[in-house]
Amino acid sequence: MSALTEGERRIEWAGGQMPVLRQVGERLAAEQPLAGLHVGACLHVTPETANLVRALRAGGATVALCASNPLSTQDDVAEALAGKGVEVFAKGGEEGYVGNVVAVIGTEPVLTLDDGADLLTAMHAKGLPDGFVGATEETTIGLVRVRALEQEGRLGCAVLAVNEARTERTFNDRYGTGQSALDGILRATNLLLAGKTIVVLGYGTTGQGIALRARGAGANVVVCEVDPLRALEARMDGYEVMPALKAAERGDVFICVTGGRDVLRKDHFKRMKDGALLANAGHFDVEIDLEALRAAAAGVEQVLPLVESYDLGDRRVNLLARGRVVNLAAAEGHPAEVMDISFALQALSAVWMATQKEPLPATVLPVPGEIDREVAKLKLDALGVKIDSLSAAQRKYLTSWRG
Amino acid sequence: MSALTEGERRIEWAGGQMPVLRQVGERLAAEQPLAGLHVGACLHVTPETANLVRALRAGGATVALCASNPLSTQDDVAEALAGKGVEVFAKGGEEGYVGNVVAVIGTEPVLTLDDGADLLTAMHAKGLPDGFVGATEETTIGLVRVRALEQEGRLGCAVLAVNEARTERTFNDRYGTGQSALDGILRATNLLLAGKTIVVLGYGTTGQGIALRARGAGANVVVCEVDPLRALEARMDGYEVMPALKAAERGDVFICVTGGRDVLRKDHFKRMKDGALLANAGHFDVEIDLEALRAAAAGVEQVLPLVESYDLGDRRVNLLARGRVVNLAAAEGHPAEVMDISFALQALSAVWMATQKEPLPATVLPVPGEIDREVAKLKLDALGVKIDSLSAAQRKYLTSWRG
Amino acid sequence: MSALTEGERRIEWAGGQMPVLRQVGERLAAEQPLAGLHVGACLHVTPETANLVRALRAGGATVALCASNPLSTQDDVAEALAGKGVEVFAKGGEEGYVGNVVAVIGTEPVLTLDDGADLLTAMHAKGLPDGFVGATEETTIGLVRVRALEQEGRLGCAVLAVNEARTERTFNDRYGTGQSALDGILRATNLLLAGKTIVVLGYGTTGQGIALRARGAGANVVVCEVDPLRALEARMDGYEVMPALKAAERGDVFICVTGGRDVLRKDHFKRMKDGALLANAGHFDVEIDLEALRAAAAGVEQVLPLVESYDLGDRRVNLLARGRVVNLAAAEGHPAEVMDISFALQALSAVWMATQKEPLPATVLPVPGEIDREVAKLKLDALGVKIDSLSAAQRKYLTSWRG
Amino acid sequence: MSALTEGERRIEWAGGQMPVLRQVGERLAAEQPLAGLHVGACLHVTPETANLVRALRAGGATVALCASNPLSTQDDVAEALAGKGVEVFAKGGEEGYVGNVVAVIGTEPVLTLDDGADLLTAMHAKGLPDGFVGATEETTIGLVRVRALEQEGRLGCAVLAVNEARTERTFNDRYGTGQSALDGILRATNLLLAGKTIVVLGYGTTGQGIALRARGAGANVVVCEVDPLRALEARMDGYEVMPALKAAERGDVFICVTGGRDVLRKDHFKRMKDGALLANAGHFDVEIDLEALRAAAAGVEQVLPLVESYDLGDRRVNLLARGRVVNLAAAEGHPAEVMDISFALQALSAVWMATQKEPLPATVLPVPGEIDREVAKLKLDALGVKIDSLSAAQRKYLTSWRG
Repeated sequence: MSALTEGERRIEWAGGQMPVLRQVGERLAAEQPLAGLHVGACLHVTPETANLVRALRAGGATVALCASNPLSTQDDVAEALAGKGVEVFAKGGEEGYVGNVVAVIGTEPVLTLDDGADLLTAMHAKGLPDGFVGATEETTIGLVRVRALEQEGRLGCAVLAVNEARTERTFNDRYGTGQSALDGILRATNLLLAGKTIVVLGYGTTGQGIALRARGAGANVVVCEVDPLRALEARMDGYEVMPALKAAERGDVFICVTGGRDVLRKDHFKRMKDGALLANAGHFDVEIDLEALRAAAAGVEQVLPLVESYDLGDRRVNLLARGRVVNLAAAEGHPAEVMDISFALQALSAVWMATQKEPLPATVLPVPGEIDREVAKLKLDALGVKIDSLSAAQRKYLTSWRG
Repeated sequence: MSALTEGERRIEWAGGQMPVLRQVGERLAAEQPLAGLHVGACLHVTPETANLVRALRAGGATVALCASNPLSTQDDVAEALAGKGVEVFAKGGEEGYVGNVVAVIGTEPVLTLDDGADLLTAMHAKGLPDGFVGATEETTIGLVRVRALEQEGRLGCAVLAVNEARTERTFNDRYGTGQSALDGILRATNLLLAGKTIVVLGYGTTGQGIALRARGAGANVVVCEVDPLRALEARMDGYEVMPALKAAERGDVFICVTGGRDVLRKDHFKRMKDGALLANAGHFDVEIDLEALRAAAAGVEQVLPLVESYDLGDRRVNLLARGRVVNLAAAEGHPAEVMDISFALQALSAVWMATQKEPLPATVLPVPGEIDREVAKLKLDALGVKIDSLSAAQRKYLTSWRG
Repeated sequence: MSALTEGERRIEWAGGQMPVLRQVGERLAAEQPLAGLHVGACLHVTPETANLVRALRAGGATVALCASNPLSTQDDVAEALAGKGVEVFAKGGEEGYVGNVVAVIGTEPVLTLDDGADLLTAMHAKGLPDGFVGATEETTIGLVRVRALEQEGRLGCAVLAVNEARTERTFNDRYGTGQSALDGILRATNLLLAGKTIVVLGYGTTGQGIALRARGAGANVVVCEVDPLRALEARMDGYEVMPALKAAERGDVFICVTGGRDVLRKDHFKRMKDGALLANAGHFDVEIDLEALRAAAAGVEQVLPLVESYDLGDRRVNLLARGRVVNLAAAEGHPAEVMDISFALQALSAVWMATQKEPLPATVLPVPGEIDREVAKLKLDALGVKIDSLSAAQRKYLTSWRG
Repeated sequence: MSALTEGERRIEWAGGQMPVLRQVGERLAAEQPLAGLHVGACLHVTPETANLVRALRAGGATVALCASNPLSTQDDVAEALAGKGVEVFAKGGEEGYVGNVVAVIGTEPVLTLDDGADLLTAMHAKGLPDGFVGATEETTIGLVRVRALEQEGRLGCAVLAVNEARTERTFNDRYGTGQSALDGILRATNLLLAGKTIVVLGYGTTGQGIALRARGAGANVVVCEVDPLRALEARMDGYEVMPALKAAERGDVFICVTGGRDVLRKDHFKRMKDGALLANAGHFDVEIDLEALRAAAAGVEQVLPLVESYDLGDRRVNLLARGRVVNLAAAEGHPAEVMDISFALQALSAVWMATQKEPLPATVLPVPGEIDREVAKLKLDALGVKIDSLSAAQRKYLTSWRG
């Protein structure tokens, strides 16, 4: 016990905060539904991921792991996993990323777990092996890529949309990123959020979470959207809604979370107030047009470890974490508790795919409702929350048309 | 103009607050997509409904109308509509209800608009006429009944689930009932909500809205649910979640909004605090077990026009509006603006069904996404809110898998 | 019991919701601290006031009562009080107001309770009688008047500033009016608050309460202030703060609560959106410049019982309750629970003044802290809330400078 | 410019976020009101404090500085200040603290700035020098100590209660600590706040801020108080209020902010849930009875850099930052913007004391209202917020008693 490495100790601590995954892992250990299965995983290499790998292995699988974002790789965790016999291809920093994905493909996984679809799309580029069972995907942006593959008629396997599970939307998108994006901004800047005007660009589930937390922190929140349904919802939620060019003049802090690109561009930068802060909470670093920002600036100064100040002549705008996803680059990403839900879903989804009797269709599939419900139940148990159940008479009433 | 009756003036005022329906009505008047169609409607007979009827008639339809809840019928509105040539079968009060539904069926409608499915189920009991185009349904509970019909293999036409449209969920369930249920409680009791413990039973969209508004009014909110997914979401939204028996001891006010029956029963009444208030925000008056409440009471006193006090020996519990849906029975139901959305959806759904070239399948169908989006756009226009649109490059990026 | 009149029954119901005053009344009945004292009261004639009168009489006082606002007088309550031997000079409607104040003065009270200082200032105009004990005042605006008297060197007695007691600020200003002002707007218009821009003019305690509740109801709130401290606090609370002329273009609803006059004037009306709603939550109907509004309008139409629509040519603005205080004129004023606090403070303040051994200075005095604390304790008891107390060691630590 | 040290650069960055102090500093530089005055300061040695020192020196003062809490001392900042000619007696870590206070006293300051009253009480122990001008104090706990001195008849100078200025209460207590205490907890644990039960012990201004932010982060908040007025306010703000022993069973996170000692004791630890987190946001590390915690534990493990896990047999409770003030020990203390307000008040208070013609009384004095108002104005300017001002007629109305 005293001989735990730093990485091992952090894995233990995270595991202690992942009671849902722990219960899932215990069941997998007992039932061995993944016996003999080789899994490839392209995920953030963190203590939480280590606990997922542990659960899969407990269920009988072997696992090869690379990083879905090299900047989030925690080397002590990678070492700890390698020490337990996991094939780990990951090292912190920006180099070697592509090679590591290729290395995992070389281990010939028959089921993949992805966070951005890098592994699965790379496998498609090379050709899926025979006997490939299926894949899970964790992110909105990854699903966009998978669905584009499907639309081109090139998707070769079933993909479970973990990110669209209801528990996942709640924990990961709304409450996980809602909290951690602001946490990242605080750690990078130590800004007082109360009294600030925060512009949230994109009002999907994650944007909703960020807007809610920003308001909860005392900020005045402005929302920009291109979708009329979401725009209307933002307005009904009490936020001001306006085009980004107008919001550019109002904001103290801008947070992009659209999943798209070039959301903030030259025309926006030109209208911003002196000292405006730019942060990206989307998966890729393309939401802020960094090239345009550099082109517009007379100079750039690193004013804090995670803050670059761009000199736009009469004003300065400050870019956080080089436009990379701020909750990972400036904070610690999702709390363990959020990953607990995601990874319980991942593990149960992998089991579900591995145990189907019929081959699955080559399409994006929702996570089965019974898995979602099971995860919710395990989480309520972990929280010590008890709830009622319907009586037979009540259940009958609810399904009767006679009223 | 000076000769407007009270009913007519109230219809005009409501119309002024229904800009979306007005725009829809103008289009219908120009395009006449409902020319010659006979529509049967079973809706609350209010000034807002009168504006829907007007829009349908502008589009070429004839309309027969009865009340979906006789207690909400506003006689001056009924008279004003009748004066314009609408066949109205509705009179305030609890009598004549069933006969009025029968009378509408007697006018042989080929398309129905329902709020609780009373008209459509009655038509099914009698047999749908040839050439029946389809139906719309406005409520969750109505859809339960329609789907029960479908499951029994007896559904004879397409039913558009207006209540499940996204704009409808936002306006009607979350924000409409969220506000008006509490409004009804205030009008009946003039209670101070701040500092009260309010127990919300049922955390569907409507329950979420009520909980949100109750918290916004300064109450401490406790949620009871039977569904683990919803229970978990309530907890993550910051509410305490517990079984109803335990909540019975905590609450100052109880609001049922489950869609089910006997949610509060004898065992709950026995544990409540002296002075506890019971309100129902569900469609039917079966959520509170009124029979058990009467059986448990030594006496009942009408302490305020909409409050009956039940003497349970050492304590009294107070029932609002006899357990009928409190936002209609004690307040004025939905704001015109909410009905504006619902009725724009109803009108566009009717047009959509009436203009399909192929017959529709006999099943519950979602409101087409383009209708939902169109309503959102018209509402944003009405609010004066402008939003951005995607550039071609952005749209391409969002649908490309190469990232 | 079965012979209770409507007024008596409503007094009983209100009494049941005033547990703090009830406890105070029981103590007064036991101790008779007001024996032989003649009290004059100028208050809203409501069931809650009737319970205050009852408590004072239980303590030995005789009471004469007139209305502080004739529009809020509830005739059935006035009758019920008169039937019990109280000298009541009050009748609903706008006539006879001044005469009724004079009539109370004619009964020669030696202690007065005021809500707007009408009685006390009228008594000063006439000259205070010998042996006058003192006065209490319930409103901010009343204290402004009393302090003006004091500044002119004409104040002839001690006045306890009930409105500035801490419990009073919390219940009456922040949470009482915060809720009831919006309640009045809803009852008058059945408006959906979610998604609306609500402009709150004045950010004193009452304005804070209204802004908080408006945000809690889903509105986007804009605050206007003339005081830099309050303006800054509004901004830090997350609201937009701007000059009223700019806010005039933004608002869907305007609520004045400054205590001043002509807050919304011709220039503001000219910039408002079509359909803007104007409401006053200040004590007097001078916050909206009604004369200027009438002068600017081509015509006025009564569109709902409490809504007048002013035709400004290309737009209409709608005035609620003729600019009178909207929570009284359009709703039922404060919940009984709020008046419970106010009137417990009034009663204990009267007792405190009546039982001082030395004459009190002729100045505005704060309600003694022990009364405030006593009321808080009684209210916590009534709510069933238990709290801790300091140990001797903790108390010593808190008062020691050695740390 | 390229030659800035790390400390200098961080001082510059902080200065850029302190626009109010900068404006004050410019005025001091122009007016030299502190010419020749020697100031002693015992404050957190941070970049923000460095900017205060700079403003004082710009105004003509010389300054000697020691640390009010050695754990918050940033050595690079201390070096940068020393390099500019400030007498700095501060070094990060727990040693040498008392000696540094003595060293500042040795420089014979005639005006002191304190954050906890350590410098002023030490000077009193030794005896105040002749010609001592006065002192400012920044914290509630420091004022308790000063007032204890006063009550013993030993206070030798005027002390301006900066902490009780209205702008200070808003920024420092409510919004500064409200945000940074939770920020500290997040940095130490990466916990998900949504869905957690957070117990806030103490509902002063700081406790209110923490409770508000915790609720804004999605937590269910329980408040413990000993003062009935505050307890009632917490309840009316929508929180559950209960004795700490009962709350001990409910909480996932406990935050002490009472200013007192032994708020959480053995009996509380025994009832807590497995994994409960204990944090202190009060000035001194005595709010959690650490001795009792150690005595109750079979062992202690450092599970994260700022988290110690105490083994209580069947459960573990986790102590953050060894019970030291969590916003300083685990985060970066107040945002620069908060210190901007505090230090502008400090500087203007020092100027006010130094420029009085008559000697000040030896008592605790409020910060003059005109300073508070001036700081609010400067801050509104910095935020770009414009507000209205009263017309002459409006001002007259507000001060007239005739109504």
